Amino acid sequence: MSNKGITPRNENYSQWYLDVIERADLAENSPVRGCMVIKPYGYAIWENIQKELDSRIKDRGVSNAYFPLLIPKSFFSREASHVKGFAKECAIVTHYRLKETEDGKGVEVDPEAKLEDELIIRPTSETIMYETFSRWIESWRDLPLKINQWANMVRWERRTRLFLRTSEFLWQEGHTVHETHEDSKKQVLEAFEMYKKFAREVLSIELYGGKKSESEKFAGAVDTYGVEALMQDGKALQFGTSHDLGQNFSKVFNIKYVNKDGELEYPWQTSWGVSTRMMGAIIMSHSDDSGLVLPPIIAPIKVVIIPIYKDSSRDKVLEFTKDIESRISATIDRVHVDDRDFISVGNKFNEWEKKGVPIRIEIGERDIEKNMVTMVRRDTGEREEVNINSIGNDIKIVLDNIQDALLKRSQQLLQENTHEVSSYEEFKEILKSEKGFVKAYWCGRKECEDGIKYDTKATNRCFSKKGQGKCIYCGNEANEEWVFALSY
Amino acid sequence: MSNKGITPRNENYSQWYLDVIERADLAENSPVRGCMVIKPYGYAIWENIQKELDSRIKDRGVSNAYFPLLIPKSFFSREASHVKGFAKECAIVTHYRLKETEDGKGVEVDPEAKLEDELIIRPTSETIMYETFSRWIESWRDLPLKINQWANMVRWERRTRLFLRTSEFLWQEGHTVHETHEDSKKQVLEAFEMYKKFAREVLSIELYGGKKSESEKFAGAVDTYGVEALMQDGKALQFGTSHDLGQNFSKVFNIKYVNKDGELEYPWQTSWGVSTRMMGAIIMSHSDDSGLVLPPIIAPIKVVIIPIYKDSSRDKVLEFTKDIESRISATIDRVHVDDRDFISVGNKFNEWEKKGVPIRIEIGERDIEKNMVTMVRRDTGEREEVNINSIGNDIKIVLDNIQDALLKRSQQLLQENTHEVSSYEEFKEILKSEKGFVKAYWCGRKECEDGIKYDTKATNRCFSKKGQGKCIYCGNEANEEWVFALSY
Repeated sequence: MSNKGITPRNENYSQWYLDVIERADLAENSPVRGCMVIKPYGYAIWENIQKELDSRIKDRGVSNAYFPLLIPKSFFSREASHVKGFAKECAIVTHYRLKETEDGKGVEVDPEAKLEDELIIRPTSETIMYETFSRWIESWRDLPLKINQWANMVRWERRTRLFLRTSEFLWQEGHTVHETHEDSKKQVLEAFEMYKKFAREVLSIELYGGKKSESEKFAGAVDTYGVEALMQDGKALQFGTSHDLGQNFSKVFNIKYVNKDGELEYPWQTSWGVSTRMMGAIIMSHSDDSGLVLPPIIAPIKVVIIPIYKDSSRDKVLEFTKDIESRISATIDRVHVDDRDFISVGNKFNEWEKKGVPIRIEIGERDIEKNMVTMVRRDTGEREEVNINSIGNDIKIVLDNIQDALLKRSQQLLQENTHEVSSYEEFKEILKSEKGFVKAYWCGRKECEDGIKYDTKATNRCFSKKGQGKCIYCGNEANEEWVFALSY
Repeated sequence: MSNKGITPRNENYSQWYLDVIERADLAENSPVRGCMVIKPYGYAIWENIQKELDSRIKDRGVSNAYFPLLIPKSFFSREASHVKGFAKECAIVTHYRLKETEDGKGVEVDPEAKLEDELIIRPTSETIMYETFSRWIESWRDLPLKINQWANMVRWERRTRLFLRTSEFLWQEGHTVHETHEDSKKQVLEAFEMYKKFAREVLSIELYGGKKSESEKFAGAVDTYGVEALMQDGKALQFGTSHDLGQNFSKVFNIKYVNKDGELEYPWQTSWGVSTRMMGAIIMSHSDDSGLVLPPIIAPIKVVIIPIYKDSSRDKVLEFTKDIESRISATIDRVHVDDRDFISVGNKFNEWEKKGVPIRIEIGERDIEKNMVTMVRRDTGEREEVNINSIGNDIKIVLDNIQDALLKRSQQLLQENTHEVSSYEEFKEILKSEKGFVKAYWCGRKECEDGIKYDTKATNRCFSKKGQGKCIYCGNEANEEWVFALSY
C-alpha cells in the first residue's frame, strides 16, 4: 500500500478500486445489505453528471415526470418475457404497519396489516409507466410521448460492489412512445448516440457500442443497444442501454392510439437509461495509484488553492491568496481555498490529489513578490509557474486541456486494447493475458456464446459489423463480427 | 361546473382543488393505493422549486448526499419516543425474491426468500443517517456537519389527497450536527427563516410560524418549529418544519466527538424539511375558478404566445410571431409558442389559463402593421396593448409585478384572516364561519388543546407571543398566546 493508503493497481486492481473510493470520500457500504451511502463529495459528482445529462435529455424534447416507487405484483405478470427476464430478485413489500412490541421497547411487523396484492419496489418502471400511458394516449396528437425519470431503483443483488452493482441505485430512465417503428428505432439510436456523445464530451470516456445479442438483450425488448466502456484492467463495463421495445409492451398494457386515418393502432416504444454505475466507469477510466482523477466538467472542485505560510507570513499570504482566488473565480466556478490551520500542507496535497481535483495552486510567501504562483496538474503531475495577471484565462485553458487529454487517453486505451482475432486459441490467449475487446466472427447460435463464456468467462458485448467469416467457436459460416470481453 | 371543467370554489372547495390539478395536468392518482403520478407539467414546477431551494440550502453551507431507501427495522426501536411518535404506518419489505407461478404465467412471492430483519421504506431518514454519522464524526474538526437529501419517502396514509397527503412523497431533509446547543438552535431558526424567505420570494406565499406545542412536535425532538400557510378557504397548511433534536438521537445512535478540550461529548442535532406538499400550498394560495395561477419564478412557461390566423394569413402571422418570440426570449426564459393547428384559439386560451401561465401574448394579422400585440395577465385578467420594440423589458417588469402582486394578495389574506379573540364563544364562532388563524391564550395543558380540538376540530398550530391572559378553554391563568386553526 502506498503512503496514500491506496493499493497499487498492478498489485490488486479490485482493492485499488475500493481504496480510491474510500480515500476520495465518494461512497461507503451502509448497514443495509447491498445499499450504499453516497457521500457528499461523491454525490456532488453525481449532481454534476445529472445536470449535464438532464439538459441534453430535455434538449431532445423529453420531459421529466415522476412515477410510483411501488408496483403491484400483478403488473409483472403481464409481459411474459419481461417476467422470465429479470423481475425475480427484488424487494417485496408485504405489510404496511409496524406495532410496538409487548414490552414497549421496540417494534415488530403487525400481522394484521398484510397487503392483498404485494408491492414490488421498482427494479425498472416499464410496467407502472405503461399502464399509465394507456390512459394518457388517445390519438396521434398525443405522440410522440417522451418521458424521463430520475429515480432510485432496487434489484436484490447477491454480490455487490460500490457503484458497480448495488441493491439500490440511482438512474435516469427514458420512456418514449411513437406512431411508427421507424420513429421509435430512430429514438433508440438517438439515445444511444446521446450517451456516447455525453460520455465523450462530459466524462472524457470513449465508448464502444452496438446491438446486443438475443441472449444479452433486455427482457421484453425487440432489440437492445448497449454502450460499453473499457476499464484500465481490460474489462468492459456496460455504461448504458437503449431498448427498442417494439409493440411488446403496448400490446400487453393495451396502449392504443387513433392514427391519422382514424384507425386504432398499437404504438411503438423505447426505453433507455444510465445509472450510478457510470460513477464506477469514471473512477476506473481515469484514476491512478495516487487516487481519483476527474474530468474538470464534473469535478466538484476544479481548482484548489493551498496557501503555504509560517505564523509570521500568515496574514500576508492569505491576503495574496484571496486576490488569486478572485482572479481565478472570474473565469472558473468551483474554486476552493484550503486554509485549514490544523492540517499540514503535505496532507492537504495528498487529500486533494486523492480526491482528483484537476488543478492545484500553491501559494508561498516568495510568490508574492514574483507575482507568480505554482500550478500542478492532477492528470500528469506537471508543475508550472503561472503569472497571476493572466491566471484566470491560463487556468481555463489548462482545464480544457485536461478534459481533452483524459479523453485522448481513453480513446487510446480503447484502440490499443481492441483486438481482431482469427483463431479460437488466439481469442482465448488474449482474454487470458491482455484482455480488452476482442472482435470475432460468430454464427449467432446461443450454444457458441455459452461455450465461449464457459471457456473464457468473456461475454458477447455487442455487434461489430457485417462480413464473411467463420464462427470463432464452432467454425461454421458466420456473417457477423461481434465484440467479446470480460466484463463487470 | 364552469365551461373549463372546474368546480367553483364557493360551490365545493375540495372538488375545486382536484379539478385544478386535473385540468392543469399536474398529477393524478396511480393504480398504487395512495401513490401519485406527478405529470410533466407538475414535475416541471417541482424542478423549479428544487432548483431555487437547493441553491439556498447550499449557500448556507449544506452539502447534498444520498442514504439508503431501506432501513433495518431494528433501527426504529432505538429512539423510544421516535417509535411512539409515528413510525408505525409504513411499507415493510419482508422478502427479496419473486418466482414464477407453477403455470408459468405469472409471479408470486418466493417464501424461501424471507428477510431475517425486515426492512422499512424510509418514512424519514434520522435513524439511517445518524447511524452513519456516528462513524463519520470523531472530533470537533468534523463539526458542524450539514447534510441535505432530496429523496422519496413512504408513509402509509389511510386517506390520501394529491400532493397534500400521499403514501409516497418527495422531499428535502436537512440534517445537521453541532458542537453546542446554542449552535444547533441557531441552525433550527436558520432553516425556519430560510423557508419563510423562500416561500415569500419564490412562491409568493406569506407564512406564519413558530414553535409547536408539546403534542404537535416531531417524535424525538426537543422542539419543533413549524411554518404554516393560510389557504383561501381559511384552513392552515403546514408548509415545513424545523426540529431541534437536542442530544436525543446522538445519545441513542452513539454519536460522539472529541471537543477542543479533548473530552468526549454528544453533539447537538437538527433536522428540517419541506415536501411535495408545498405544491398543494401553491395551488391553493393563488389559483381561481379558471384554474391554476403560478408565480412566474416557478412557472414552467412564463409567457405563452398564441398566433391567431386564417389560412390566408398563416405564414405572415407565424413569421411575425417568430420575431416576437425572439424579442421576448432575449430577456425572458421559458417562452412558448403555441402554433398547433388542430386546436382552436379559444381552446388554447382556456388551456393555458387552466395551466396558470402568467402572461399570454395574442398576435393577430392586424397587429403586424401596428407593431403592437396584446398581452393578458393571468392573475388579474388585464389586457394591454404592448409595443413590440420594448416588449422584452416590458414583459420582464410585468412578470416581476405578478410575482409581487401574488405575494401581496397572500399577505393580505393572512392579515385579514388572523383573529384575536377573548372568549371561547367568539373562538368557536370564528372557526365555524370565516375560519383563518385564531390567536388565543392557552395554559399549556394537553387537556385544553384536546378539548378545543374536540369542540372545533381546530389544532394548535404554533406559538405566537408571551403575555398575560386567561386560557381560552379552561379560563386559568396563561402567559402565552398560541395560534389555532383548522388545517389540512
